[in-house]
Amino acid sequence: MVNCSKLVAMRQARLATEIRKIEIIPGYNRYAEGSALVKWGHTHVLATVTIDKTLPPHLRAEGHKGGWLTAEYAMLPRSADKRIRRERLYTGGRSLEIQRLISRVLRTVVDLRLFPRKTLILDIDVLQADGGTRCAGILAAYAALHEMSNKLILSGKLSEWPLKTELAAVSVGIANGKKLLDLEYSEDNIAEIDLNVVASSDGKIIEIQGGSEADPVNVEEYFELVYMGISGIKDIFETVRPQLK
Amino acid sequence: MVNCSKLVAMRQARLATEIRKIEIIPGYNRYAEGSALVKWGHTHVLATVTIDKTLPPHLRAEGHKGGWLTAEYAMLPRSADKRIRRERLYTGGRSLEIQRLISRVLRTVVDLRLFPRKTLILDIDVLQADGGTRCAGILAAYAALHEMSNKLILSGKLSEWPLKTELAAVSVGIANGKKLLDLEYSEDNIAEIDLNVVASSDGKIIEIQGGSEADPVNVEEYFELVYMGISGIKDIFETVRPQLK
Amino acid sequence: MVNCSKLVAMRQARLATEIRKIEIIPGYNRYAEGSALVKWGHTHVLATVTIDKTLPPHLRAEGHKGGWLTAEYAMLPRSADKRIRRERLYTGGRSLEIQRLISRVLRTVVDLRLFPRKTLILDIDVLQADGGTRCAGILAAYAALHEMSNKLILSGKLSEWPLKTELAAVSVGIANGKKLLDLEYSEDNIAEIDLNVVASSDGKIIEIQGGSEADPVNVEEYFELVYMGISGIKDIFETVRPQLK
Amino acid sequence: MVNCSKLVAMRQARLATEIRKIEIIPGYNRYAEGSALVKWGHTHVLATVTIDKTLPPHLRAEGHKGGWLTAEYAMLPRSADKRIRRERLYTGGRSLEIQRLISRVLRTVVDLRLFPRKTLILDIDVLQADGGTRCAGILAAYAALHEMSNKLILSGKLSEWPLKTELAAVSVGIANGKKLLDLEYSEDNIAEIDLNVVASSDGKIIEIQGGSEADPVNVEEYFELVYMGISGIKDIFETVRPQLK
Amino acid sequence: MVNCSKLVAMRQARLATEIRKIEIIPGYNRYAEGSALVKWGHTHVLATVTIDKTLPPHLRAEGHKGGWLTAEYAMLPRSADKRIRRERLYTGGRSLEIQRLISRVLRTVVDLRLFPRKTLILDIDVLQADGGTRCAGILAAYAALHEMSNKLILSGKLSEWPLKTELAAVSVGIANGKKLLDLEYSEDNIAEIDLNVVASSDGKIIEIQGGSEADPVNVEEYFELVYMGISGIKDIFETVRPQLK
Amino acid sequence: MVNCSKLVAMRQARLATEIRKIEIIPGYNRYAEGSALVKWGHTHVLATVTIDKTLPPHLRAEGHKGGWLTAEYAMLPRSADKRIRRERLYTGGRSLEIQRLISRVLRTVVDLRLFPRKTLILDIDVLQADGGTRCAGILAAYAALHEMSNKLILSGKLSEWPLKTELAAVSVGIANGKKLLDLEYSEDNIAEIDLNVVASSDGKIIEIQGGSEADPVNVEEYFELVYMGISGIKDIFETVRPQLK
Repeated sequence: MVNCSKLVAMRQARLATEIRKIEIIPGYNRYAEGSALVKWGHTHVLATVTIDKTLPPHLRAEGHKGGWLTAEYAMLPRSADKRIRRERLYTGGRSLEIQRLISRVLRTVVDLRLFPRKTLILDIDVLQADGGTRCAGILAAYAALHEMSNKLILSGKLSEWPLKTELAAVSVGIANGKKLLDLEYSEDNIAEIDLNVVASSDGKIIEIQGGSEADPVNVEEYFELVYMGISGIKDIFETVRPQLK
Repeated sequence: MVNCSKLVAMRQARLATEIRKIEIIPGYNRYAEGSALVKWGHTHVLATVTIDKTLPPHLRAEGHKGGWLTAEYAMLPRSADKRIRRERLYTGGRSLEIQRLISRVLRTVVDLRLFPRKTLILDIDVLQADGGTRCAGILAAYAALHEMSNKLILSGKLSEWPLKTELAAVSVGIANGKKLLDLEYSEDNIAEIDLNVVASSDGKIIEIQGGSEADPVNVEEYFELVYMGISGIKDIFETVRPQLK
Repeated sequence: MVNCSKLVAMRQARLATEIRKIEIIPGYNRYAEGSALVKWGHTHVLATVTIDKTLPPHLRAEGHKGGWLTAEYAMLPRSADKRIRRERLYTGGRSLEIQRLISRVLRTVVDLRLFPRKTLILDIDVLQADGGTRCAGILAAYAALHEMSNKLILSGKLSEWPLKTELAAVSVGIANGKKLLDLEYSEDNIAEIDLNVVASSDGKIIEIQGGSEADPVNVEEYFELVYMGISGIKDIFETVRPQLK
Repeated sequence: MVNCSKLVAMRQARLATEIRKIEIIPGYNRYAEGSALVKWGHTHVLATVTIDKTLPPHLRAEGHKGGWLTAEYAMLPRSADKRIRRERLYTGGRSLEIQRLISRVLRTVVDLRLFPRKTLILDIDVLQADGGTRCAGILAAYAALHEMSNKLILSGKLSEWPLKTELAAVSVGIANGKKLLDLEYSEDNIAEIDLNVVASSDGKIIEIQGGSEADPVNVEEYFELVYMGISGIKDIFETVRPQLK
Repeated sequence: MVNCSKLVAMRQARLATEIRKIEIIPGYNRYAEGSALVKWGHTHVLATVTIDKTLPPHLRAEGHKGGWLTAEYAMLPRSADKRIRRERLYTGGRSLEIQRLISRVLRTVVDLRLFPRKTLILDIDVLQADGGTRCAGILAAYAALHEMSNKLILSGKLSEWPLKTELAAVSVGIANGKKLLDLEYSEDNIAEIDLNVVASSDGKIIEIQGGSEADPVNVEEYFELVYMGISGIKDIFETVRPQLK
Repeated sequence: MVNCSKLVAMRQARLATEIRKIEIIPGYNRYAEGSALVKWGHTHVLATVTIDKTLPPHLRAEGHKGGWLTAEYAMLPRSADKRIRRERLYTGGRSLEIQRLISRVLRTVVDLRLFPRKTLILDIDVLQADGGTRCAGILAAYAALHEMSNKLILSGKLSEWPLKTELAAVSVGIANGKKLLDLEYSEDNIAEIDLNVVASSDGKIIEIQGGSEADPVNVEEYFELVYMGISGIKDIFETVRPQLK
């Protein structure tokens, strides 16, 4: 049972359309080609990029010429309030669903022709979770790719900036009948509807995922949530852009 | 490489907003509590419902009182043009992603309070695939639940109709710059944007999945596709409703 | 508990040496190199043939020159009266035993020298089971190979008919002290002895599998059952041969 | 390539219907409820029986009252001329097929009503292999059960001898056109037909497995092989019976 | 190839018997019963303690009365200079060896009678690795248990301090003929001998692991290394003790 | 519970510093390049060496020129007093820890430059266990390599003796306050401290593993145990050397 008075109390600390505090530490890892630690409220996610010199077997077989990008997502066992089993014998559906989303959306960002026959491997590990881990994971991945790009340009290994779009993701939902941006875990847990909007900083849609957990939603209400998410992503970039320099 | 002239040729056979022919054979399986074979163009999907007398362990532990619904999705190895490896050592991300979608959306349809401490297990097996297998899977699941409901009412085991909504799913996308409803494999393969819209027959949204495979999309264009999907789902029910009697 | 009076009732509908009705739909799958759906009483099995352009690694290593044939067998979860768990983490002993049998016996049928360095992969999937699934699987595999052969000859890809023998399988057993041909599930379930005879249409033995589930059997009785099986296989080909044209 | 002159040489050392030398060491293992090491020619197999105090879950669920018997079979990696991979991630089809055979046939031997709600677990491990490992495994299992029975009777834990039948298995086959009993690996490797006959010492059949590896066989020839196997099993018991005392 | 002049250069920055800088952040994780992030040179390890309300099945079966402690160890894929595959299908031998060591040595530290029928689960995750990850893991585990103890005492849930010993671990080895304390990765990589000494802060041994990677070592030399490790552990506690308050 | 009076009784049969009777049967397996069965008290271990013509993939990738040595260790299910589950889906931590130890220490023994680009695979299988299986495994591995070396020299395939050191391992520990050499299972089970010392026959250390299971140990006491182990290894070679000729 969620204590609703406590919930209201929490949102009194920020507006319904306000993003939590986001802190980015680019270059957190000393070995990776790119890396970033993202602290988005109490959700902490570490992303690294590895540039692997080979393509995955199925693309090699097809004679694919450009590069490729793939992602792996995992939560540390005690990143959550209740300990989660380590995925050592098989990978759960939720992890696979999220890493497929992260791979897909970041493939639309990177100009993979600049990485011929290479694979960019993103490792997204959640150190602590308080809702919105897939959105924080997308941001950490973007920030790690940004740091990688900086290093490649500075070292002269690339002459062209490889990121085509500024991209972020945010959750929007309806909890207790109220439309909310950037849901924390306690809000997400009671939401009747919950979407993840992935969009560019100039307001174009990359992907939307999710929907109703209870009754179907009116189209108009659905569209309002999408607009709220797009607007939130613009706010995110105001905060994030200076931290990526 | 896709032969575009051939593609155009195919769509000459039906309009951009026209659904492929859908045939439903309810009760295809003689043992299941409910079942249906759906032939949606060349995509053939078999769904069965099993009413299991127990809840999954994590819900039992939580003292969950109502029922539960879960789904498993798989493709036969030669359902596709190129043989797919049987998932015998682990289940791939695509299968898990789809079966999670099917579970989620059908849980919004069934009144699970009528199945206390029971689990409805949907088995969705693709016999032949020509695009839209997850939409055909959702329809087959719905039709199997419909047949189950008929049998439970007729036998007196239930006195109340357990389905709360008429629900279906359809793909919408843009291929060669053209907005299309219900993409076949050859169209899906070249689509720049590809959404799966899950909605009720009266036009409310359950879930939308997917987005751009290439460049970000304008919000307006995205919304047009959603309307096209909702309208298609109404058409689907015109065809399907009489076959479920 | 099996209701014996009901059992008797069922066999009153056909003679002890009578085969159930067999219907074959060749070419059921539009992508496979060969395919067939077999409906043998209430047992429904779908088989497809894929011609893979490579040999399995161990044969390649040995410098094997001819072709190879292999089979995979699975039951859909609700093909049976009680739902069977999907074999997703490992393959059970029964499935492996059956697919090894199917592979072995069909390798004696196909002239694999005509498929140099290729592998014929049979996928045998049971849609509905009422006893005799391995026999129906062998028949479906044979019918799929037959359809493949027809297509290869018609298209001029082969000039020689690649099947060396007409082969089928049938179960024979003793239930309630009575010798029966082609046991249904309810009969198989109470049989004291149960054999699967695989033979050519001209009465030669390919393989016999099985034996007593209870007390040892006299040799003479065992041989009578074998003769009953061989005779049944001749009957099967009377029914099946016209359907394969 | 098998050197046929060498093959002939080997069989010159024993008749076509002669069994290899069989040595049995009952009680080889100091912990097991029963055990035996069987040296059958160069094939060495160790069997142990463990009496487990529980039934397998599926039988417990069904309220099964009597006992159960199950077997596991494995080959040590270098039991064969060429090293075999240890089955550590999954169990291969051959191992599962053999252990299912061993379980089935030994369940017809033991009076399981004397072991209510217990499971006899047979572990059959091949230390060295020169053909006929499944037959040697069946004999080792039988000998281990025999030693267990002796100990249970002597210690007064059982008052009734629990083995209902004397059972053994032997391979028969045709190699180079010649009918042979008890094939060694070099013979088995070139056999056109190869059967494993499992029978009681008084000549009744428990199970026959196998058949043609090449062309179909005449029924008469098949029956002759069966008779040869039954006769061989009588010979085996002449040798083995005194060693079990 | 390791550049030896570079290696010498590195050790010029600290003495052969000098420990790298160690920073501890207790309470790094907001959910765990105890946690700590340890930065030991460039090696960064995060440890959490979960107090699970049940014992592992085998101890429950044995009627074990006290508590238990267990550990899981993993490296993030890009914690190392070269990306390591995520252990998702099975756990590698190195991980299992290390987590068994960590479990064993920390069981000697905690008074498990104070946690009746509970399991303390340590999760040890390496965020970045520069040699000595198992020693840093042991320290992080100790620090996390220390933070847990503080919280349990402060909240009144325990009235007795549950840690019996101050324990740490350090590596000692011989590289280029020189005895070194606390090896970095570049030193560890070329060491002829490499030990991990686990000892209490008052110089008693808990466990020693490891030995020669090349030629056998004189006993006297081995004992000198052990003394160097014990002395190093005293130094570690001078640094660490104030950070745990 | 261990019966201590019985324990005392056992050690009355041999001195605290006395090794159990060791019997070695070199060449136990007729196929392996080298093999030995070691009976060390009631602990029986079979080792074989296979000379594989390839290096493991990671060494091939690195362009490694010399040979390699690796080991696999397993216990037969009923080698122990209580049946152990067969490791068929994954390999347990204890097995992996032991096989890593065996691999490491035997790599210091063999001159791998004499086996360019080959892998020596040791298979160590415990047939019966009464404590000290890893020490008996190391001895069996050594003896199997010795037999291999003899055969390679005799056949002229090697002109130089490939073993650089005589190596063995022995356990030492403290049980009931008494220092003991070569612990049996009943002693090992109650030991407060338990080490495995791996050393050369001339008293140099290869590796020491283990430590306290309870309270930390004084360094002096630890060193006494190490000396006891080294002395025991000299005794072992007095017994073992003649059996290896």
